Amino acid sequence: MQVSQRFRAGRMLAAAGAMLLAGNAAAYDWQALPDKAPSPDHNPTTEAKVELGKKLFFDQRYSATGTVSCNTCHNIMEGGDDGRPTSMGVHGRTGPRNAPTVWNSAFNSTQFWDGRAKNLEEQAKGPVQADVEMGVEQLQTALERVTSIPAYRDMFKQAFPRDDDPISVDNGARAVAAFERTLITPNSPYDRYVKGDKDALSEQQVRGMKTFNQVGCTSCHSGPVFNGPQMNMAEGQGFYQKFPTFTDNQYVDKYDLMADQGRARATGKDADQHMYKVPTLRNVALTAPYFHNGKVKTLPEAVRVMGKVQLNKDLSDKQVADIVAFLKGLTGEFPQMTLPRLPSKPGETIVEAGDTKAGGGAH
Amino acid sequence: MQVSQRFRAGRMLAAAGAMLLAGNAAAYDWQALPDKAPSPDHNPTTEAKVELGKKLFFDQRYSATGTVSCNTCHNIMEGGDDGRPTSMGVHGRTGPRNAPTVWNSAFNSTQFWDGRAKNLEEQAKGPVQADVEMGVEQLQTALERVTSIPAYRDMFKQAFPRDDDPISVDNGARAVAAFERTLITPNSPYDRYVKGDKDALSEQQVRGMKTFNQVGCTSCHSGPVFNGPQMNMAEGQGFYQKFPTFTDNQYVDKYDLMADQGRARATGKDADQHMYKVPTLRNVALTAPYFHNGKVKTLPEAVRVMGKVQLNKDLSDKQVADIVAFLKGLTGEFPQMTLPRLPSKPGETIVEAGDTKAGGGAH
Repeated sequence: MQVSQRFRAGRMLAAAGAMLLAGNAAAYDWQALPDKAPSPDHNPTTEAKVELGKKLFFDQRYSATGTVSCNTCHNIMEGGDDGRPTSMGVHGRTGPRNAPTVWNSAFNSTQFWDGRAKNLEEQAKGPVQADVEMGVEQLQTALERVTSIPAYRDMFKQAFPRDDDPISVDNGARAVAAFERTLITPNSPYDRYVKGDKDALSEQQVRGMKTFNQVGCTSCHSGPVFNGPQMNMAEGQGFYQKFPTFTDNQYVDKYDLMADQGRARATGKDADQHMYKVPTLRNVALTAPYFHNGKVKTLPEAVRVMGKVQLNKDLSDKQVADIVAFLKGLTGEFPQMTLPRLPSKPGETIVEAGDTKAGGGAH
Repeated sequence: MQVSQRFRAGRMLAAAGAMLLAGNAAAYDWQALPDKAPSPDHNPTTEAKVELGKKLFFDQRYSATGTVSCNTCHNIMEGGDDGRPTSMGVHGRTGPRNAPTVWNSAFNSTQFWDGRAKNLEEQAKGPVQADVEMGVEQLQTALERVTSIPAYRDMFKQAFPRDDDPISVDNGARAVAAFERTLITPNSPYDRYVKGDKDALSEQQVRGMKTFNQVGCTSCHSGPVFNGPQMNMAEGQGFYQKFPTFTDNQYVDKYDLMADQGRARATGKDADQHMYKVPTLRNVALTAPYFHNGKVKTLPEAVRVMGKVQLNKDLSDKQVADIVAFLKGLTGEFPQMTLPRLPSKPGETIVEAGDTKAGGGAH
C-alpha cells in the first residue's frame, strides 16, 4: 500500500499497466482470503471456546518447565512463528523443523509439515507432549495442572455445557482449535487488489504476481491461502508436494534439503519420501527463516531456491525481486486482540519447576 | 512526594473509614493504592514511550535464543511473575532468585531483591544481559537487532523526539520503564474496604487485617503498596530488612534461608548481609512460590514462616488462615490491554538462533 502511494503520481499509467498485466494474470483464478474460517461440525466455534482456547494458547505454566506456551513458538504478536530455524522448547531443546505460522492455519486441510494431524484439534495436542516443545509427558498431567485452577474449570464447563465430562484433554484441544480458527488475516494489499482496488499493489508487485503465475509457483501455491486447492476443507485430505523435486543443483546440499524424510517419517511409506504439505504463503514476509528446516534466511533466497528445486528454473534477479515484492503484498491485517488474563490458584503455583541447571543471575 | 501529595486527601478519608470499620486496626494508617504511578523528571511517561516499551517488554526475538522476553518471567497475563521458584531463561538456565512481580513495581523505591538498581530504567537493562535470563552479551547487540526493524526505529524517534540520537539502549530502557509504570492494580477488595465499602472484605478478612497489624507485619509491610514507607519515592532510597531476623528455628534450614547473602552480594558490605528490599504484598496470592529463593510453595506456609523468622511468633492456624484471607484481598484489578503487534523486518528474521541442542519433535 505504501508502495502504491509512492507511485501515486503515475497512478493512471500504473493502473493501465495493471490492467494489461492483469489481463494475462486474469487467466488464473486469483482468490481473496475469506474473513472467517469455517468450523467443523464436530467443533462449532463459540465465544466461550475461543476465550478458553486463547488463554490456553498463551498459558506457559502447564509446560514441563512453566516457560513455554503455544505462543512461544507460534507468536501471534508477530508472524505466528518464532523467527528461529527450528523452534526451541523446554530445557533449550530444539526440534528438527521450522515452526509453521498459526495465522490462517484454519485453512490448512492437514496440519504439521508432514500433514500427520488431520485438523487443528489433533495438532494442538502434539506440542504439549513433544519433549522439545512443551515437554509434558502425559497430556492428562497438563490438563490437571490447568484445571486445578477453579476459574479454568468453570471455563471448561461454560465452553462445553452439554458434555457430561467437560474437563478433558480433547476439550482443551477443541478450545485451542476454536481460538486458532479466529486467527485470520484478510485485506492484504493482494486481497484488496483482487477485489478491485488496483492501487493496492505497486507496479512491481503486479509484475511479480504475473511472474509468480507464469513461472509456475501457482501450480502448488494456489487458492485463497496459496497452499493448494481447498479440498472443500475435507479434513485430513492434504495437498502434498515433493521437496526438492529437482535435486541436481547447488541448493540441495547447501541447505541440506534431503536430510528430512518429510511425510514418510509419519507414514513410513516410500511414496511419501520428501513429501510435504504445501504451506501457505500468507504473511510469508513475516515468517523467515524459510522451509521445513529453516535453513534459508531470506525471502529472496527462498524464492530463488524454490525456482530451482521445484521448477528447475534459474530465476533472474529481476524476477526474484518482483516475486518478493508480490509476496510482501500477502501480508494481511491482523485483528486487534485483548491480552488474555490467565486465572490463578490463589496462594499456590501450578508450575512444576522440576530439576534445573542453576547459574548466577539477576533479580 | 508526588504520591503523598496526590493521595493525601484520599488517605485521610481512608483512615477515617478504616477507623469506623476496623476498630483497633484503625489505629494503623491503612492506605489505598494510587490509580497511577508518578514518573520521574528524567523520564516523563508519554503514550509513545509506553507503546514502544510494551512492544519491547513482549518481544522475545532480541534474547540470545529468540525465545525469552521480559514477559516470560514477569508474565503480566498473570501475577507479573512466572510461578517458578527461580526463573528460567535462555538455554534452560535458572538464576538464584525468585522473579519479583512487575505489577506495581513502579512503587518500589529500589529494584531487584537486593535493591541494586535505583529505578526501573536501570533495572530493565539487567535481565537482557544476564546469562540465565535473556543472555545477550552486549546490550548494544539487542538494540541493533531491534532497530534493524524500520518500524522500531520510527517508534524510538517518536518516543524520544528531542534526542539527537533517539535510538539508544538507555532510551529502550526508558520506554520499558514507562510501560511498567502503567502496570498498576488498584481497587482490590482491600482498597475498596479502606475507601469505605464495608462489604468489600469478609469478616475473616477484616479479622486477618487486624491480626496482620497486631502481630507486627505492618512494621515492614506498610504503606499503600505494603512494601514499606514510600520514602517520598526518592530513587534508590530503598527500604530494607534483614531476612531471616530470627534464625533459631526449623525454617531456616528447611527453606535454606541463609544461603543467599542478600544485599551484601551487591554492596560487598557486611552490614548488608541477608538484607533484602521489603517486597510488595499486592497480588501476593498470585505470586507463589515465595521468598527470594522461591522455596516456600504456599501462602499459608509463607505467612507461618514470616511470623517465626521475622517476628519470632508461632502464629496459630487461625491467625494464619485469617492473614491469608486478608492477603487474598490485596489482589487488585488488572487493566485490560491490547495484545501488542510486534513489527517485522520483511523477508528476514532478527533472531540469531545460535547453536542449539537438537532433538526429535513436532511440526
